[in-house]
Amino acid sequence: MSTNELQEAISGLQKTFKEHPEKAIVDYHSESSLVDGFRSDVQLRQHRLIVDEPKAIGGKDEGASPVELILAALATCQEISYKAYATALNIPLEKVSVKLTGTLDLKGFLGIDQSIRPGFQHIQGTVDIQSSADSKTIENLKTIVDKHCPVLDILNKGVSVQLELSDKEKERKIA
Amino acid sequence: MSTNELQEAISGLQKTFKEHPEKAIVDYHSESSLVDGFRSDVQLRQHRLIVDEPKAIGGKDEGASPVELILAALATCQEISYKAYATALNIPLEKVSVKLTGTLDLKGFLGIDQSIRPGFQHIQGTVDIQSSADSKTIENLKTIVDKHCPVLDILNKGVSVQLELSDKEKERKIA
Repeated sequence: MSTNELQEAISGLQKTFKEHPEKAIVDYHSESSLVDGFRSDVQLRQHRLIVDEPKAIGGKDEGASPVELILAALATCQEISYKAYATALNIPLEKVSVKLTGTLDLKGFLGIDQSIRPGFQHIQGTVDIQSSADSKTIENLKTIVDKHCPVLDILNKGVSVQLELSDKEKERKIA
Repeated sequence: MSTNELQEAISGLQKTFKEHPEKAIVDYHSESSLVDGFRSDVQLRQHRLIVDEPKAIGGKDEGASPVELILAALATCQEISYKAYATALNIPLEKVSVKLTGTLDLKGFLGIDQSIRPGFQHIQGTVDIQSSADSKTIENLKTIVDKHCPVLDILNKGVSVQLELSDKEKERKIA
């Protein structure tokens, strides 16, 4: 897709959602099952993902692990947001790459120390931009991207999660 | 891997980390680049992922989108945590499947309405457990899993994220 086509796609979405705000509300779905050991198969629309744990954690390492998917989600959301906003704002962008490191203390997950959180202690990373734009323009772009990147927002602020045992489980309880 | 082998793997990790707490601190890494349009290729150790946006958002839909990876991360982390804790606690677990829905208002990402967050408004889902254990045991298992699941912790509480432009960018600024 050329820059012009992408600009048209973005401005088309903005026009549509300004006129019909309700059309901007989108549900995303995931369906998955543990198939063997720690391996899970995930269906995201037509896309299939294999998730597993490394051998050191007891898995067969047949796919990336769940916490690695968090890093992948953040990195790619950043990259897409840079592309979208650079395109919309007519800022040249030859390349964008992201390297991330997330630090986890497994004593939290394994219940060895209740004072340690199970999730990442922190995520750190670098964004590498190749662009003919000046540094001030790129820094302003970073500010705009970081304000609008969906996954960065989710990780920075958290999100309300409600998980329930399925109806089958509830029925069993009543029976 | 048999239940016994998995039990040994988990209790082995717990023993190692009690004796050497520093060994439990693990760094996870992600390296990715935008390759074309909104498509990004991600490397997570030896695992490669293709991430893209749906056609309706301006992508070519060559892979799942970043926010879908958030759902996949949560679902599989739940499933693996159920398997790990059921195994460690000798609770029978024939199957565990998770269905999730994340609701996003694209007016946040596209900067149309600054009062709308770019990330998920909320995530809702069901966990389907097949087990010969009674309902009270499964509900207790859910409580333990939800307390220790790394991705649920990340999403519930958020995580500190630091992103910097790469040194190349800083050098350009000084130059």
